[in-house]
Amino acid sequence: MTKNKSNKGVEILAIGTELLLGNIVNSNAQWLADQLAIIGLAHYRQSVVGDNMKRLKEIIIESSQRSKILITTGGLGPTLDDLTTEAIAQSFQTNLVEHKHILEDIKKKFNDLDSLPKSNLKQILLPEGAKVLPNPLGTAPGMIWSPKDNFTIITFPGVPSEMKKMWEETAKPWLLENHPSGKTFTSKTIRVAGIPESALTEKISDLLTKENPTIAPYASLGEVKLRITAQAKTTQEANKIIKPIEHELEKRIGLNIFGRNNESLASSVVDLLRERRETISLAESCTGGQLSSAFTSIPGASDVFLGGIIAYNNFIKENILKVPINLLQQHGAVSSPVAKSMANKTRHLFNSDWSIAISGIAGPSGGSNSKPVGRVEIFISSQNLQKSFQENFGPHRSRACIQKLSVVRALDRLRLSLLMQS
Amino acid sequence: MTKNKSNKGVEILAIGTELLLGNIVNSNAQWLADQLAIIGLAHYRQSVVGDNMKRLKEIIIESSQRSKILITTGGLGPTLDDLTTEAIAQSFQTNLVEHKHILEDIKKKFNDLDSLPKSNLKQILLPEGAKVLPNPLGTAPGMIWSPKDNFTIITFPGVPSEMKKMWEETAKPWLLENHPSGKTFTSKTIRVAGIPESALTEKISDLLTKENPTIAPYASLGEVKLRITAQAKTTQEANKIIKPIEHELEKRIGLNIFGRNNESLASSVVDLLRERRETISLAESCTGGQLSSAFTSIPGASDVFLGGIIAYNNFIKENILKVPINLLQQHGAVSSPVAKSMANKTRHLFNSDWSIAISGIAGPSGGSNSKPVGRVEIFISSQNLQKSFQENFGPHRSRACIQKLSVVRALDRLRLSLLMQS
Repeated sequence: MTKNKSNKGVEILAIGTELLLGNIVNSNAQWLADQLAIIGLAHYRQSVVGDNMKRLKEIIIESSQRSKILITTGGLGPTLDDLTTEAIAQSFQTNLVEHKHILEDIKKKFNDLDSLPKSNLKQILLPEGAKVLPNPLGTAPGMIWSPKDNFTIITFPGVPSEMKKMWEETAKPWLLENHPSGKTFTSKTIRVAGIPESALTEKISDLLTKENPTIAPYASLGEVKLRITAQAKTTQEANKIIKPIEHELEKRIGLNIFGRNNESLASSVVDLLRERRETISLAESCTGGQLSSAFTSIPGASDVFLGGIIAYNNFIKENILKVPINLLQQHGAVSSPVAKSMANKTRHLFNSDWSIAISGIAGPSGGSNSKPVGRVEIFISSQNLQKSFQENFGPHRSRACIQKLSVVRALDRLRLSLLMQS
Repeated sequence: MTKNKSNKGVEILAIGTELLLGNIVNSNAQWLADQLAIIGLAHYRQSVVGDNMKRLKEIIIESSQRSKILITTGGLGPTLDDLTTEAIAQSFQTNLVEHKHILEDIKKKFNDLDSLPKSNLKQILLPEGAKVLPNPLGTAPGMIWSPKDNFTIITFPGVPSEMKKMWEETAKPWLLENHPSGKTFTSKTIRVAGIPESALTEKISDLLTKENPTIAPYASLGEVKLRITAQAKTTQEANKIIKPIEHELEKRIGLNIFGRNNESLASSVVDLLRERRETISLAESCTGGQLSSAFTSIPGASDVFLGGIIAYNNFIKENILKVPINLLQQHGAVSSPVAKSMANKTRHLFNSDWSIAISGIAGPSGGSNSKPVGRVEIFISSQNLQKSFQENFGPHRSRACIQKLSVVRALDRLRLSLLMQS
């Protein structure tokens, strides 16, 4: 590497005493790092400092000597401990000036003008010469500013949703235009369910040592993501490098692959149902609305999802779903016969093509020797299919975990049932 | 503050290219930061660098000038890109020496001695004079080393479980003995809903500049947390410092305070209903199960939560909830009269004391001029109370955000209704 300015990289600085106190995890830095990798900008250091003027200025000046771009998050709000903009201006002996059109934007966001707190007026100040980085979601705008040659500061608020929107809409296009890296990292994520991470990585262990593309596995509750990343001059070239590995993964993993990139289990099930012009309804007990939420988080789910019954209380299973009382007495609410009855009654009530019923013991209490915490009965019903699944997630797991795994498993069982029928 | 050495603090340095690539989030730094706060050691900066010898040495030397203790995580493994120990030794021109008893420990962990990879031998090297920080769970030990006066380096592997065990067993006791802070930080979080962050901080702006206790506001979707942190010799003393400020906040913020520490809006509503021995049922349209999920995520919610109807499709509103068709035709599904009918029909169907209905337009499509995306009708029904709320969260917000805000607002409206009635 040569010592010219192009050897300098990007730094990320997260600002907030809450990070130093360990109150929150620095997920913004991770997200930005990932974005920088995607656009091929080298990134050599991340820092965190608190809401302290002296330390903030120290690190801003340091960073301006070391890097070509400093990206900050946090400290743009209206309160007294939001110091970022002022610290940056002071670091380069520059005055803050009012940006009237930011005020107009803030006023629009407060429908009632009289309710606009005075403290928000601070947010219309930016260093002389700085370009506004608009914030479509909140009142705190950021900025893009080059206080000296070969050094630019880009500021974002700490609220992740605002930061992400501002990155996508303004900062990323600006970087691509003003700091083209000449290379790109392109990634494609293969999403896998129904097979544990260790068994999956064993199947593909020889592929995990490849250098271009690389394959990195990330496990989360009930799912493993395989991220294929290729480096090339253009996205097109990178995609050509990814293609054969993707086919190899498809060959080895098969139907356990449920989607790519942002496709979730729920969205893949919604897509499958939509293709078949079929509808679904749900009866949930221990998941208490979470399976419905998974469906309704997908835009356009109303094409296939009609609704559901949350039968949390046995009285509801009996009186609204009309599950025969003798089934409840004989087998208990967490049993295959009751789940079957719930699924079929719901399918008829909603007049849907498919239905799923879930009944289980999410804990922490309510378990017994014969039916421990973590036991979940899932039933999938359609005119041509009646299928019962018993899951045992184990009493060592938390309530939240058991509920989440039940949802993932129900979606995956339905997905496979739909694929088997086509 | 004086400029003597006691003014220097602790720094955390996480080492690993995977952090710079955004592959993983730096949860180790958050955990260590929290631990440092608990034992009262001031901590002013966190950094991340990749597995690069030059940059590692640069930041180690910098940090040795700025801080009294540098805590590192990562880079202790057996592979070529694990550089931490060597970089530290080189930074202070110190030789690495073999520690035979580490080898004994590693050998014990490999039952089959022949399988011991040569690369593990690297892990028995530490700078001359360094004390071993034993790793009970893995093969990579850390160290505690003071290469110069008033400066100590403590190294941990990057594997969180190993780091935590090594902290608890060796590093924390060492710090308490060698760097007693003579103080402890104790925090209490006051949770507030129904008032925007800027308006809230204006109400308490004079309190935000206090030094002991400090009050720090953190905003998230539909909620602001106020974290009160007191510094004292003992937890008991710290609690005495927190009490009067907590009372002052209660006086100024009043009913907008819904809970403390881990109490959520949902748990506070469940508690209120349980105290009154009353039950609730729900009718959800645009939130599609998320309000039910908020209830059922609380252990023991079954005491008060009976269940609900997800009436995502209008057919269900008409045929299961029996909302009169003329109401739907005249006012549309997103209207106060339809929400009222949904709430009352559900309350009777489930025979519950309370019910909430939510109907709205979560987007991204489905909005119109008269009913834009973000319009949400909430109706709360009980024998003595019939109350309608129209929320306008704005079409600029995402579907996920509108759904989440609807849930938060519905819970808060119910909470206030319950408090008004008692």
